[in-house]
Amino acid sequence: MNMANPDTTSPETSLDTRFALARALAQEAGAMALDYFNRRDTLVIETKRDMQDVVSIADRNVEKMIRERVAAMLPEDGFLGEEFGHTEGASGYTWVVDPIDGTAPFVNGMPTWCVSIAVVHGGEPVIGVIGAPCQNELYAAALGRGAKLNGRVLTLDPTRTMQNALTGIGANSHVTPEVVSDIVNRLLQAGGNFIRNGSGALMLAYVAAGRLVGYYEPYMHAWDCLAGYCLVKEAGGWYHPFPVEGEGLTKGAPVVAAGPGARADIGKLAGVC
Amino acid sequence: MNMANPDTTSPETSLDTRFALARALAQEAGAMALDYFNRRDTLVIETKRDMQDVVSIADRNVEKMIRERVAAMLPEDGFLGEEFGHTEGASGYTWVVDPIDGTAPFVNGMPTWCVSIAVVHGGEPVIGVIGAPCQNELYAAALGRGAKLNGRVLTLDPTRTMQNALTGIGANSHVTPEVVSDIVNRLLQAGGNFIRNGSGALMLAYVAAGRLVGYYEPYMHAWDCLAGYCLVKEAGGWYHPFPVEGEGLTKGAPVVAAGPGARADIGKLAGVC
Repeated sequence: MNMANPDTTSPETSLDTRFALARALAQEAGAMALDYFNRRDTLVIETKRDMQDVVSIADRNVEKMIRERVAAMLPEDGFLGEEFGHTEGASGYTWVVDPIDGTAPFVNGMPTWCVSIAVVHGGEPVIGVIGAPCQNELYAAALGRGAKLNGRVLTLDPTRTMQNALTGIGANSHVTPEVVSDIVNRLLQAGGNFIRNGSGALMLAYVAAGRLVGYYEPYMHAWDCLAGYCLVKEAGGWYHPFPVEGEGLTKGAPVVAAGPGARADIGKLAGVC
Repeated sequence: MNMANPDTTSPETSLDTRFALARALAQEAGAMALDYFNRRDTLVIETKRDMQDVVSIADRNVEKMIRERVAAMLPEDGFLGEEFGHTEGASGYTWVVDPIDGTAPFVNGMPTWCVSIAVVHGGEPVIGVIGAPCQNELYAAALGRGAKLNGRVLTLDPTRTMQNALTGIGANSHVTPEVVSDIVNRLLQAGGNFIRNGSGALMLAYVAAGRLVGYYEPYMHAWDCLAGYCLVKEAGGWYHPFPVEGEGLTKGAPVVAAGPGARADIGKLAGVC
């Protein structure tokens, strides 16, 4: 891939250059993480550590690879990763990466984890790439270029609603049991049904693919949601904006996304519209 | 496979013969269901029906294939399937089959569905085979012969608890939103965390594989749980017995299973011990 001078070319070329790099990195990072996943039992024995240590090592090494590759090719770009924090950039583009989203499924041997790579520009995610290596799936979107799953264009069906489809939910330790159970209760009372597979980023990709009609999690970080948000938007869906400017980028916020037929119901569930 | 005279041989041979048939049928049924799954969008267009019709056709044709194969080889065996109900047998063995467990994931394009085949004898499931074709996984157990995933022996780790691992939950329209949200609330309050992938049978297989430490669903049918129960038991876990005698076999009941380190907590969550 010729990555020469992406910042001296047109904005369109800059986006396409970064989109190609994001897709290539998601593939490479996915293969790297999958290798750790497949060898996890052996690694626990070899390193005399526990599974949580193994996933931490995998997380850090995958992020390190992505950071180094971006820094080498686009040294002016900013970078925010879950593991090593925020490096300011000068190009106006910031990469926002979760090397392994869904560490609980990863640690427990379930396939529902993914690599999530977003690029933010002008206050919004303009690139979103999510790789789910256990399913051999690559979700990729860039602003104005549509969303694709393994090359197939994703277009959301407006007839799907919270009542005739499934909604994804998530929560972490920032959210109390009462809040989580209240979300479940109100979702079911409204005639919906829910899935929770342990990876918020992957469930957002599922929204873009029409597998889920919406997603709600009361508190997530930018690296968990921005790639999924770009995918959902480019597939024809809606998302509740994440505060990506200044300190907002490193803080948690509610994450809400939906297909066109479920926007009102999911927004109401999340209390954002 | 030589299926001649399985009922005139020893009880051990009868079990092994049926175990081999169950594994072969789960593979064949899985391939058949996967073909429907992969062609689902085309089938909707071709048949001018909706996705729910397509999964119903797949469900019925997969069960029909399994029923016919069992009837041809073991005509004295009973058969209970989700789609075509109960046929009494005379051999003391009854096949209990869910051709596609997790029809909601299937319909929505998610990979978390499976084929579930159990054989009941003497009041308990003595064979449990679950095929998850999207993951290319075959879980197989028979009484006293252990549980295996793709040939690898499954042995549950007693150090895993409701607090340090994930618990699967499920519910259907028989269970009120209040009951479901109360389960979520109490599970989280007790320091646990949950997964819901849309297939109870597959989540029970995950308990046997140590991916989940337990599973609870307030109301399931025999065809949803019996294969998973056999798998969990043979992997060293515990389950709350399902009423398989007489009419119990066709009615719903609570389903509870756990690894050895979570039995007390999961049993308490479900109110069964």
